[in-house]
Amino acid sequence: MTAPGSTAPVLAPRVLGRCRALVRPALAEAVERLHPWVGEMAAYAFGWCEVGGAPAPASGGKGVRQALAVLGAEAAGAPERAGVAAAVAVELVHTFSLLHDDIMDGDAARRRRPAVWKAYGTGPAVLAGDALFALAVETLAARSGGPAAVRALSAALGDLVRGQADDLLFAARPWTGPEQVRPDEYRAMAERKTGALLGCAAALGSVLGGAAAGTSAALDRAGRHLGVAFQIVDDVLGVWGDPAVTGKPVHGDLRERKKTFPVLVALRTPVAPRLAALLESGTDPAAAAALIEEAGGRSAALAEARRHLTAAEAALTAVPLEAGAAADLRSLLDFLVRRDL
Amino acid sequence: MTAPGSTAPVLAPRVLGRCRALVRPALAEAVERLHPWVGEMAAYAFGWCEVGGAPAPASGGKGVRQALAVLGAEAAGAPERAGVAAAVAVELVHTFSLLHDDIMDGDAARRRRPAVWKAYGTGPAVLAGDALFALAVETLAARSGGPAAVRALSAALGDLVRGQADDLLFAARPWTGPEQVRPDEYRAMAERKTGALLGCAAALGSVLGGAAAGTSAALDRAGRHLGVAFQIVDDVLGVWGDPAVTGKPVHGDLRERKKTFPVLVALRTPVAPRLAALLESGTDPAAAAALIEEAGGRSAALAEARRHLTAAEAALTAVPLEAGAAADLRSLLDFLVRRDL
Repeated sequence: MTAPGSTAPVLAPRVLGRCRALVRPALAEAVERLHPWVGEMAAYAFGWCEVGGAPAPASGGKGVRQALAVLGAEAAGAPERAGVAAAVAVELVHTFSLLHDDIMDGDAARRRRPAVWKAYGTGPAVLAGDALFALAVETLAARSGGPAAVRALSAALGDLVRGQADDLLFAARPWTGPEQVRPDEYRAMAERKTGALLGCAAALGSVLGGAAAGTSAALDRAGRHLGVAFQIVDDVLGVWGDPAVTGKPVHGDLRERKKTFPVLVALRTPVAPRLAALLESGTDPAAAAALIEEAGGRSAALAEARRHLTAAEAALTAVPLEAGAAADLRSLLDFLVRRDL
Repeated sequence: MTAPGSTAPVLAPRVLGRCRALVRPALAEAVERLHPWVGEMAAYAFGWCEVGGAPAPASGGKGVRQALAVLGAEAAGAPERAGVAAAVAVELVHTFSLLHDDIMDGDAARRRRPAVWKAYGTGPAVLAGDALFALAVETLAARSGGPAAVRALSAALGDLVRGQADDLLFAARPWTGPEQVRPDEYRAMAERKTGALLGCAAALGSVLGGAAAGTSAALDRAGRHLGVAFQIVDDVLGVWGDPAVTGKPVHGDLRERKKTFPVLVALRTPVAPRLAALLESGTDPAAAAALIEEAGGRSAALAEARRHLTAAEAALTAVPLEAGAAADLRSLLDFLVRRDL
């Protein structure tokens, strides 16, 4: 539900488009520094070309991280080039993590095309991810004023990997009993896996631009809360979302036995034994979805996402930011998360 | 052949042991900062534990890179802690590259044990490599005076990935004709894939310790030449080495159709058509080895390795270095390469 009177549905896509256009030349220039073969895999992953190098008709993702980087820099009064450099670094890291996560999770498709490992092979996809990772660090390290930025990026990278490790291990844990995954463990995982890079994206331009530490910390916090909210909304859509809108099969996350937030909440209620049996058998995901909703899993998830979104907005209010960019940032939060709450 | 009167066979193992003992606590402390599951995979890769975490009786590799880092720092008059931090960073990067290369190359064994991807699965091995990579950057970025060091490490990382890409693509190219791999392409690949990190290892401690740029550059150059020499000697041993010493099957590299330096040299001579047919059929590696030797591939490879070793030694002579550490560095070059020339 979009807040009444919100301009986000109109404004945010325009903001995203402006940031993509601003960042694209620098990102393309960075990718051109890669080994040509690896560069083609990177361009494929960005949605710029098909296998073989022919230009792709469709583009890649929305570019949330690069937009956060540009807007974070602008909001902190950092020069435009700081925002662009930050955007390039976080997009490279994001794409690296998609490439490797798709291998780890066995996901064969990404944005309605074969994942890089499916299109080029597992080994080459590992290599392309490594190359993007190295390029991100190289890009930042080459800049004067880069040490704090490299520290911020490498801390986010560390969190990203820890979050992915937690997430992989969650899959092996039981639905119920002392070893079951608790909602607070999920929250910590989501903050690492999704929030850390969004926080780094929002803060990095301001760090590169030499903004006050408090400003960068607030932007980082906002991005981390956005990440958790985003992840939980994604979980809700993964169970109850309209496949025509999400592009994913109905009840997909239940069929895949994913330990998402609404599920974990419902498993802390008396329906747990019944729900665990349903989830385990996987034969009636519609009944599982109904049971999770009845146990309050859906509403608790939405309330949790709302709480993180409010915290993100509060973080942005706590420090002095350039008004126009701060408004664009808020419209982005609204567009990415609130419309689905 | 060891140079007459050389003390390398006695001295170098002692130097390697001293450096391993010096670096081990800091390396263990860094690895402990990893996610516990990922930390176990890292400890397994270092040869410290078995699958499940039980301590391993045998240790890992010789620790060439950590020794270069410690000796490079000492030779440049940098404080000991700079050498240790450099050693930790390069060992983490080296182990990351082994983990991912074994996946890309499909190598199931490493140091007579299952490779990490065989022991823990491909996805987890990808993740563990990423975590080691991130930890290496984090370790360096956290240090004051780190920016130049991060630049040096990230440049080496970029080279490492480019070299691995070249090496993977070499496999798909023909033995003869305009598309055949030229020895100079091989040299560039080996400098990137093996030399860049050895050069970085030798230089990094001096960079962290604030040594003159000329000193760090000379150490880097020495390490790069060592890398090419080391790789070519490894190629010679892969064809003519004694399996009892190398621990690898006789003619292993020929059976695997590897485009090694002696092979590439022989393929530039009139025996090329006959050799290509032998290599392609793979049925008589002994005849292929004899033909490569007859065509001068072996002696050209040894001469090339010797040339790079001499260049490495010349690089060390060109700048003022602390005498004891420089002697240890020379004994290491001797031990690692010259004994096999």
